[in-house]
Amino acid sequence: MQTPWEYRYAHRMQKMGSSVIRELLKLTEQPDIISFAGGLPAPEVFPLKEFQEACNVVLREQGAQALQYSTTEGYRPLREMIARHNSRYSVEITPDNILITSGSQQGLDFIGRLFINRGDYIVVESPTYLGALQAWNAYGAQYIAVPADENGMIVDELEEALRKGPKFIYALPNFQNPSGSTLSLERRRKLVELADKYGVPIVEDDPYGQLRYEGEHLPSLVALDSEYRGFDGGCYSGNVIYMSTFSKLLAPGLRLAWIVAPEGVIKKLVMTKQAADLHTASFNQYVAYEVGRGGFLDEHVNVIRATYKERRDVMLEMMDEMFPPEMRWTRPHGGMFLWGIMPEGVDAAEVLKVAIERKVAFVPGAAFHPNGGGENTMRINFSYSRPELIREGITRLGVTLKEVLHKNGNGKK
Amino acid sequence: MQTPWEYRYAHRMQKMGSSVIRELLKLTEQPDIISFAGGLPAPEVFPLKEFQEACNVVLREQGAQALQYSTTEGYRPLREMIARHNSRYSVEITPDNILITSGSQQGLDFIGRLFINRGDYIVVESPTYLGALQAWNAYGAQYIAVPADENGMIVDELEEALRKGPKFIYALPNFQNPSGSTLSLERRRKLVELADKYGVPIVEDDPYGQLRYEGEHLPSLVALDSEYRGFDGGCYSGNVIYMSTFSKLLAPGLRLAWIVAPEGVIKKLVMTKQAADLHTASFNQYVAYEVGRGGFLDEHVNVIRATYKERRDVMLEMMDEMFPPEMRWTRPHGGMFLWGIMPEGVDAAEVLKVAIERKVAFVPGAAFHPNGGGENTMRINFSYSRPELIREGITRLGVTLKEVLHKNGNGKK
Repeated sequence: MQTPWEYRYAHRMQKMGSSVIRELLKLTEQPDIISFAGGLPAPEVFPLKEFQEACNVVLREQGAQALQYSTTEGYRPLREMIARHNSRYSVEITPDNILITSGSQQGLDFIGRLFINRGDYIVVESPTYLGALQAWNAYGAQYIAVPADENGMIVDELEEALRKGPKFIYALPNFQNPSGSTLSLERRRKLVELADKYGVPIVEDDPYGQLRYEGEHLPSLVALDSEYRGFDGGCYSGNVIYMSTFSKLLAPGLRLAWIVAPEGVIKKLVMTKQAADLHTASFNQYVAYEVGRGGFLDEHVNVIRATYKERRDVMLEMMDEMFPPEMRWTRPHGGMFLWGIMPEGVDAAEVLKVAIERKVAFVPGAAFHPNGGGENTMRINFSYSRPELIREGITRLGVTLKEVLHKNGNGKK
Repeated sequence: MQTPWEYRYAHRMQKMGSSVIRELLKLTEQPDIISFAGGLPAPEVFPLKEFQEACNVVLREQGAQALQYSTTEGYRPLREMIARHNSRYSVEITPDNILITSGSQQGLDFIGRLFINRGDYIVVESPTYLGALQAWNAYGAQYIAVPADENGMIVDELEEALRKGPKFIYALPNFQNPSGSTLSLERRRKLVELADKYGVPIVEDDPYGQLRYEGEHLPSLVALDSEYRGFDGGCYSGNVIYMSTFSKLLAPGLRLAWIVAPEGVIKKLVMTKQAADLHTASFNQYVAYEVGRGGFLDEHVNVIRATYKERRDVMLEMMDEMFPPEMRWTRPHGGMFLWGIMPEGVDAAEVLKVAIERKVAFVPGAAFHPNGGGENTMRINFSYSRPELIREGITRLGVTLKEVLHKNGNGKK
């Protein structure tokens, strides 16, 4: 029976689908499945002792403020800490260039609210991050998908996309979710130049930038944009909105992320946040600041890098051993994901069904392609499972792939 | 200089104004001002010891889960606890009738996203809660304002409003923000019946329901609706979306609230939340559950009631003594606010300027009237300031009012 509410949904609801990632996460709850589907950090690297100390210090010394309503922009000492870190590794900014958000997903949502009118085009990499598509579908976005390879977006194909007058370019330059690829320095420069030439701004999403396991750190788009414009300190006012998060450095259960943008944009984002949820939990901001303020994050990121590098290496080694020769995959230099490519014509959703019977899971790649395609691809997470489970899971997946690809090869017309 | 982003805002931005409440909150940061402007709970009632114990228990026993990504619906034991409480005091519901939100403001925002198309009419009390207007202005809502008196919305004037085909009715039946008024039982029944007659659903916002300092608890609209429909247990599927929060029972800095709705509506709200911020901070949900699970909230609410009753009584007593005879005000039975009414023609914004010179603050009432009016009214908070500051602040405000009303009386044509 319909409730009185149910025939009253706004028109925009008709476009909302369920979340593939969220539905798949339910699989990870079955304890006997080895899941490479989720995008979860390893719980083994959560700094529990430091959290416990920080909670105690904050409640003892600043309980009245940490549990009270606070300003929409975010806790100022936390924004100062982020600004210092950003100025060290990327472009020089002040706390007025920063808004604290309840996770990066909220940053994506706010960018959609602020900039997307129904029917607007957004340039994305293909494949691209599913959470961004979910956030922006709600505002009626359409997508121009620029193909990517192991060096990220193929920038030579960007110019044609920019001629169509998109609202902005969405880029994940480091260890991209889902593909694990990293945009080369040459392509970064070209991307920034083309964006400037066509007057199209850039949203740079960088949740994993510090999680590099080999090679040299590459400058962010916001840093290159700043260099390109000859910008020299003070308040950043360039062409890039940059996003990052504590979800991978500390813990996702805090829901703490941030947006870096020109001050005028931050002011509009603050108004958006006022109407959306007043402010991000003050307690969490105080605790994150307390955990991070003594330089702990620089130390801790080394623990995370060592842990994830080992898992990536075990996974790649097992894939070399167990996967059939028709299978290709990326060898990411950082982050949490790698990308599997099966021969054309094989459907990863069908493979997943067999895989689940064999108690192993991944995410079929089609969902990461806003305009279709990618049915033969898959996203595989290496950060969450312990090495022994990665060995067992990749063995199971190898058996699955051999079975399906062999059957497929036989059954093909 | 405009950044490349700044000419790209979506059309909806043009309607966004700055928040009067947020701007005024900045005044409360000046340490020498006694502010009755904010809507803040008393920090003296935050249960710091219980939070500290709960943080320690959660991090020791469930750290890996409490710091990890979690389900969008919210932590199930917390939803079970809320469902039990709701079933005891109001209508019987299950955890599937509940979505945990990042504060009630997020609940208001999601309701706007889900149900409001540009130009839709919403029936509100006049005055009504400013945060709801801010949330729904972003979706292009228009308002039909039904006048209210000390017994809440004048329901006799509701029927005419319902004939205009509004999307829903927004009601704050208990100790309303801003006026402090409570909807009488007779009017509650009439409201529920009229809503059913015209097929218009109700959003019931109840942040203060448990903070009653005198008189008997009145049944919520959701309970009356359920009674009216002869609903008998299981999953609630009636005409009301009900909202409440931990901001006033525990602490607002956690950003924890909840929506009760028919299961089909909760499912759509869950999809909305997936796209908006994935889920509310897991850590905060675990901690709130740990604080609340042994029955602590029932005990703690008595501490809050005693504290706020004293502050309300001191404020009313001082107003009786210090305010000029032309001034009227409400005597709320609970909540955090009372409502001052000056003679017609006096502008509360002008009074505020004088008040700030005298180091005391309130919120001018006009902002709570979506269609204009109320310039001679003011919202005064009694929960935040300690009794000695209430005495001093009301003395200052009395002097201010006498000065302005006297001058005004002389200066009037």
